Amino acid sequence: MPITTPLTQLLGIKHPILLAPMDTIAGSRLTRAVSEAGGFGILGGGYGDQERLEAETRQLSGFASFGIGFITWSLARQPRLLDIALDANPQAIMLSFGDPAQFAARIRTCGARLICQVQSEDMAKQALDAGADILIAQGTEAGGHGASRTTVDIVPAIVDLTAGRVPVVAAGGIADGRGLAAMMMLGASGVLIGTRFYASVEANGAEEAKQRIRDADPNDTVRGVIVDWSRSLFWPAPFTARTLVNDHIRRWTGREVELMQRAAEVTVEYAAARAAGNFEVAAVFAGEAVGLINDIPSAAEIVERIATEAEQLLTGRRNSSASA
Amino acid sequence: MPITTPLTQLLGIKHPILLAPMDTIAGSRLTRAVSEAGGFGILGGGYGDQERLEAETRQLSGFASFGIGFITWSLARQPRLLDIALDANPQAIMLSFGDPAQFAARIRTCGARLICQVQSEDMAKQALDAGADILIAQGTEAGGHGASRTTVDIVPAIVDLTAGRVPVVAAGGIADGRGLAAMMMLGASGVLIGTRFYASVEANGAEEAKQRIRDADPNDTVRGVIVDWSRSLFWPAPFTARTLVNDHIRRWTGREVELMQRAAEVTVEYAAARAAGNFEVAAVFAGEAVGLINDIPSAAEIVERIATEAEQLLTGRRNSSASA
Repeated sequence: MPITTPLTQLLGIKHPILLAPMDTIAGSRLTRAVSEAGGFGILGGGYGDQERLEAETRQLSGFASFGIGFITWSLARQPRLLDIALDANPQAIMLSFGDPAQFAARIRTCGARLICQVQSEDMAKQALDAGADILIAQGTEAGGHGASRTTVDIVPAIVDLTAGRVPVVAAGGIADGRGLAAMMMLGASGVLIGTRFYASVEANGAEEAKQRIRDADPNDTVRGVIVDWSRSLFWPAPFTARTLVNDHIRRWTGREVELMQRAAEVTVEYAAARAAGNFEVAAVFAGEAVGLINDIPSAAEIVERIATEAEQLLTGRRNSSASA
Repeated sequence: MPITTPLTQLLGIKHPILLAPMDTIAGSRLTRAVSEAGGFGILGGGYGDQERLEAETRQLSGFASFGIGFITWSLARQPRLLDIALDANPQAIMLSFGDPAQFAARIRTCGARLICQVQSEDMAKQALDAGADILIAQGTEAGGHGASRTTVDIVPAIVDLTAGRVPVVAAGGIADGRGLAAMMMLGASGVLIGTRFYASVEANGAEEAKQRIRDADPNDTVRGVIVDWSRSLFWPAPFTARTLVNDHIRRWTGREVELMQRAAEVTVEYAAARAAGNFEVAAVFAGEAVGLINDIPSAAEIVERIATEAEQLLTGRRNSSASA
C-alpha cells in the first residue's frame, strides 16, 4: 500500500517522489515518465532557453500532473519565461537559488503551487514569507547546484522551522527506498531525486554521461566552482555545483584564481568539449548518490523500486526490528 | 517496546545507542550513566594519559557493560595503554583512525569485542579483515575528528559493503530519535552519539562548553585543521576536527600555512587559553547536531528520549503514514 503524506495529498500523487528539474536532463519525456509512474515530474527550466522551453512545454500540453522548475536568479533576468511556463498549466512551479517573492503572486494567481528549494533556515523563512506551498530542504550531497549543509543536518532543521505548516521534501543523496524511508523518519513528506533519474532511459543526457553515473563511486563527485567558471557562469554565493570528477576538474583544482583570469579562453575550450561529448572536460552533474546507482532502467522502474522498498521498510519495521 | 537489532543482541543492551568515546569528555561517570540507562557507554581513551586512564578504569571496576575507545594511531605510540584498558574487563574496545590489525588479536584474546570506526569503504575492508565485530560508519557531520563523506552517503555504503556480516552503527549528526529511526531505515543497527551527550550533566566538559553547545546553531561548527595545529597535533590525512567556530578559528581561517609555521608560539597561547577556560580560543569539539540540542539534561534522560522517539516513529509509521 502506497505511502500517504501531506505531500502526496497536496499534489494528488501516488508516491512521495519528485523529479529534480535538472537543467536540460529533465525534459518532457522524463517528466511525463516520472508522473505516469505515480511520482511528480518537474521539467527543468534550465538557464532559460525560450525555444527549448516552448518545445518542451508543448510536449506536456494537456498533461495533468507535472511541475516546471527554474533557477530563480536566472529567471529574474528573463521573467517572460515564467509566462511560457504558466501557459502550460503546470500543477506547480519550483524555484531554487534566490528570493522567490517577486514571482510568488503571479504563480498563485495562475493556480499553480509554489515549491521552493532551500539550503538554510534563512532561505526557508524567505520562502515561507513568499507563500511557498512546499519546501525542498537540499543537502550538499545533491548533484548540480547547492550549498554546504548536509541532508541529515538541513532536513530536520527545516522540518522544525516549518512546524507542519507546509510539507518538507528532502533532497541530496537519495536514490533508493532506504533513503526515502530515512527521510520520512527525519520528518520529511517525500524526496526530490535527481541523479538516480539522470541514469534512466528517459533522461535527456548523453548515453556516456549516464554510464559514467552508473559506474561512479561516491568518492567520484566533488562540489566546487570550476565547472561554472569554465562556462563563464558566475553563480552567487553560497551556491556551487557537484559533478563527477574528471580530467578538467583535476587540472584546475587549486588553481581557481588562474581559471577565473583565463575564463574567456577556457570557456571556448569547454564549450567545444561539451559539443563533442568529451566528458573528461565537460562535466556530468551528479550527486553523492552515484554510489547507490548501478544500472540505467526506466523511470517507472526507478519510482516503483524506491516506493516498494520504502513501503516495506516503513511497514515492516514493527515486526522485524521492534519486538518485546 | 525497545528496538531490537543485531547490535543490541551482540552487546546485550536495551537501546541501540552508543556513547562516542570523546577524549576527556566521555569519562567514567558519563560512560556508566549511558550504560545504566540501557545504552552502551564507551570511555574516551583520548591521546593516552596513562594516569587518567588508570583512574577512570578504576571507577568502572566491576561494572559489566561498557567499552573503551582509542585513537588507533595514538595508541600505536603507547600500546601499553591497551593492557590497562583490557585489565578493566571492558565488553568492547573501540578503535578509530588507523589500521586496527596490530591490536585485534590481543583484544580478541581477552574476550572483548572489537568496534572499529571507519570513514570509507577501504577502511571498512581493513577493519573487517582485522576481525571487527561492529563497524561505526562515521559521517562528516560528527564532532571531533572525522573525514569528509556525509552520513547519508557513508552509512548505506558501509551497510552494503558488510552485507550483514557485522552490525553497522551510524555516527555523525544524530542527536534525537528521528536520527536513530532514519539511520535504521538506511540499514544501520544503531547510532553512536557524541555531541548530544557532551551537553549532559555527567559529561566531564566545562559548564561553559556545554552551554555553548546548547546555544549553537548548525552553522556554528566547522571542520578543519586549525585546532589541531594550534596544539602542535598533526593528524594524518584525511582526518580533520569539527568544533564550534570561535575567535581563534576565525582569526586563522585562510592562514593555515602561517599557523603551521608559527605552531610553537601558538601552541603556548592555545594551551594557556585552554587552562583558563577561554573558549574563544580553546575549541569546543562539537558536531552539526548542535542545532538539535537545546538543553543540558542527564544522560539517562537523553537515552530515554531518543529511544522513545525512535520507537514511536518506527512502530507508528504503519498507521500514520502508510495507508490504503
